[in-house]
Amino acid sequence: MSTVAYVNGSYRPLRAAAVNIEDRGYQFGDGIYEVIYVLHGRLVDSDLHLARLARSLQEVEISQPLTPAALMIVIEQVLRRNRVTTGLVYIQVTRGVARRDHTFPSSPTRPSIVITARHRPAPPRDVASWAGTAICLPDERWGRCDIKSTNLLPNVLARQKARLSGAYEAILYDAQDNVTEGAASTVWMVDAEGILTTRHLDRHILPGCTRATLIKELQDQQIRFKEAPFTLAALRAAREIFLTSATSFIKPITRLDGAPVADGKSGPVTKVLFDQYQRYIEVP
Amino acid sequence: MSTVAYVNGSYRPLRAAAVNIEDRGYQFGDGIYEVIYVLHGRLVDSDLHLARLARSLQEVEISQPLTPAALMIVIEQVLRRNRVTTGLVYIQVTRGVARRDHTFPSSPTRPSIVITARHRPAPPRDVASWAGTAICLPDERWGRCDIKSTNLLPNVLARQKARLSGAYEAILYDAQDNVTEGAASTVWMVDAEGILTTRHLDRHILPGCTRATLIKELQDQQIRFKEAPFTLAALRAAREIFLTSATSFIKPITRLDGAPVADGKSGPVTKVLFDQYQRYIEVP
Repeated sequence: MSTVAYVNGSYRPLRAAAVNIEDRGYQFGDGIYEVIYVLHGRLVDSDLHLARLARSLQEVEISQPLTPAALMIVIEQVLRRNRVTTGLVYIQVTRGVARRDHTFPSSPTRPSIVITARHRPAPPRDVASWAGTAICLPDERWGRCDIKSTNLLPNVLARQKARLSGAYEAILYDAQDNVTEGAASTVWMVDAEGILTTRHLDRHILPGCTRATLIKELQDQQIRFKEAPFTLAALRAAREIFLTSATSFIKPITRLDGAPVADGKSGPVTKVLFDQYQRYIEVP
Repeated sequence: MSTVAYVNGSYRPLRAAAVNIEDRGYQFGDGIYEVIYVLHGRLVDSDLHLARLARSLQEVEISQPLTPAALMIVIEQVLRRNRVTTGLVYIQVTRGVARRDHTFPSSPTRPSIVITARHRPAPPRDVASWAGTAICLPDERWGRCDIKSTNLLPNVLARQKARLSGAYEAILYDAQDNVTEGAASTVWMVDAEGILTTRHLDRHILPGCTRATLIKELQDQQIRFKEAPFTLAALRAAREIFLTSATSFIKPITRLDGAPVADGKSGPVTKVLFDQYQRYIEVP
């Protein structure tokens, strides 16, 4: 069975799924995307992802191509047609096709929408087998990383550097040596004093959906944590580091730039939260 | 006659010219572009544009899809098939099509290439009729603006703000209030002391081809100028401001954020350079 993609109203074999060369997503990266994990046929945090999609679109003034209800129907169709019950849904919306000019098209265009799905295994049961490593790199991204746009070249280059170093993720830091986020994930740490910490939200990081879900869990269970800036030095001194994202779930980082994080093993707080998150996605 | 585009080896009617939805240019903005002006059938500064294309591709490790000689043949074909003798050539090269993943594809992909052309009138003879206005905005772009990538969303948003203000260009300034460049042009001024000035090259601005050509002219004619940082305040106090780019040529800016630049008229230095550049592109 060939992979099927939804493109602007049609379901097409992936190899034939195409957009015009003057799609503004192609010429300007003038588009927004989301990735949603699906486990045993159920979308994880789809309400948060669709709300963030709507917010990102609004920030760049792209109109919504489908109502939320219609979008959910198409997502379910794409999953069904690809027989994906556990994996990823990818949604991309761009400003549409127009004669090339930086400014928004003077006559409104119909936004383009692409939805694909693919298999990806469920996270393992055992936190230790899910551990990864990271390198630290200067954050060279633009000033509005709260918008989930397809302007991803800096993320691509950072992730490529990580891979060449044998690492899973690149953790980025700003000009003041404060950690922002991973190239495609939120960074958390248990700091040297034992406080669970992640960076506060502002224009420089993406408001992570898994981040939001974890925060809600922490609040529900009255687990102490803080949202605050922290430096690369504080990260290096952390007792535990983990990442969150729709595809990383809760991922322990056990080595940073080649050096072990604490004793180099996945830590106890990470394990508790990993197990809790597993239960959440199994039975939300 | 319908518009014709070159896409990965074929000449296609523009409306049928398409790329796969998993082209990395579409999903990540993982691509490079150039715009070359053509006047009376002759490409302006094509050697500089093709050298910059090669450099940008090298910086992001995308291989060249065609030899320079083959690329020139295709460009001439696209111009001929569209009957464009005066206008623009647009060239875009991306990392190609691969299953979505931030890192470079593990098995090398063939880069995608798109070339289009369209009519655009020659610049007017009279500098005053070519004058425009600009607004000033914070530079929110990424840290490698020396690479001419298709990660152009910040440029799109800045140009859109300019248009909504009735201005031609958005002039960008960094966190230290130093002017970087226009959203799609190089900024020049004759400062309050009468010194012709443009910002030095580094990773934060594009090495403009028209900028390079103008500098060569200035050197040939022993006209004094400097390449140095300058502040927004210095720009506001300038005697003259103009922009350079392949499509703006030398464009006087006579109002900045609504206020007149000096007496609000195109200045004498701008006029001399505008006339000189006109002669250069007519007979290089």
